[in-house]
Amino acid sequence: MTTTEAAGADAPSTPGTHGYHKQKDEHLKRLRRIEGQIRGLQRMVDEDVYCIDILTQVSASTKALQSFALQLLEEHLRHCVADAAVRGGDEIDAKVDEATKAIARMLRT
Amino acid sequence: MTTTEAAGADAPSTPGTHGYHKQKDEHLKRLRRIEGQIRGLQRMVDEDVYCIDILTQVSASTKALQSFALQLLEEHLRHCVADAAVRGGDEIDAKVDEATKAIARMLRT
Amino acid sequence: MTTTEAAGADAPSTPGTHGYHKQKDEHLKRLRRIEGQIRGLQRMVDEDVYCIDILTQVSASTKALQSFALQLLEEHLRHCVADAAVRGGDEIDAKVDEATKAIARMLRT
Amino acid sequence: MTTTEAAGADAPSTPGTHGYHKQKDEHLKRLRRIEGQIRGLQRMVDEDVYCIDILTQVSASTKALQSFALQLLEEHLRHCVADAAVRGGDEIDAKVDEATKAIARMLRT
Repeated sequence: MTTTEAAGADAPSTPGTHGYHKQKDEHLKRLRRIEGQIRGLQRMVDEDVYCIDILTQVSASTKALQSFALQLLEEHLRHCVADAAVRGGDEIDAKVDEATKAIARMLRT
Repeated sequence: MTTTEAAGADAPSTPGTHGYHKQKDEHLKRLRRIEGQIRGLQRMVDEDVYCIDILTQVSASTKALQSFALQLLEEHLRHCVADAAVRGGDEIDAKVDEATKAIARMLRT
Repeated sequence: MTTTEAAGADAPSTPGTHGYHKQKDEHLKRLRRIEGQIRGLQRMVDEDVYCIDILTQVSASTKALQSFALQLLEEHLRHCVADAAVRGGDEIDAKVDEATKAIARMLRT
Repeated sequence: MTTTEAAGADAPSTPGTHGYHKQKDEHLKRLRRIEGQIRGLQRMVDEDVYCIDILTQVSASTKALQSFALQLLEEHLRHCVADAAVRGGDEIDAKVDEATKAIARMLRT
């Protein structure tokens, strides 16, 4: 979903909603799948599955969480940060600052 | 829990169980907490919470998954890998090889 | 250096230069320090220093590279991405797309 | 190089050398290449190359550093940690503890 498409579909986006609003269902589906993976990890531990196989599943869940975060970040840059730049003033600095801090946190995990 | 403590408590550990067996309850508790965090993320998306606050929660969940994985890896090295070294032969090579590959996967996420 | 400060100092920034242009000397100093750390790693390997101590130094160098990348990314968001949003049209989509891909690569290492 | 091959070639390995000793030349070659990549980054910054292209090169250098660290870690597990397990006593606990801490540092960068 590019900025132009998103803007056309519902411009400007309803106040109080954010960049990810249009992909909400897709995000919720992803998160339910990750929730299922975490329950799967509990079953593996409960059934004394071999450690390395559990670690493989943890990496799959972490990767799924990371791609959810990247998708959310992309929509945040495309909407919240881009809109702040267009509005002018120093709001863009706060937006860039908090986005960079969020990316730094993602890098540390 | 060091190797010597673990070995004393239940030496040798029951066949078919792995290094993490003695911390099973603690691991299951952690995973249930992470499961709760993922449900929390679903509520945040559902309630149109600001993107950056959701990303902060994702980093917290990823970090929790990572420390679960590190704990499991430590127990794997302390038991499965160390036991293979003591048994001698070339089993240790397979154990080190698969542990390194698991660490590489963890690094890529 | 916020967008407003940078814009005031040299607005618009000279064509062909990028967001990091004003911090060039600081970036070059950082990179020379990292280069020195990598030569230090060579000395450690050459002198048969203990593996864990070398791994500790590798993590320090990787962290220094990562904070250089984060700084560059922040300046890119503040200037190149923000300017594209202000100019309008669909250039912002390409900028957000390539920035997200760069962040994804950073996350995988 | 498996444990059995390494042990056969020079068993026990000369006191004061570590798991990576037999691959020293290969490691030094890798580190010199990474050093060259960091100098390349300096040229890119100096010549005002586009931010995203510099970030791509940073990810390549970080990846090279990471695979050097993984290789060193594998040799450490295969030799230093495995030897400590064979020697018995509680030295293995210290070895596993410091290896896990080194992996944790790698994960945080």
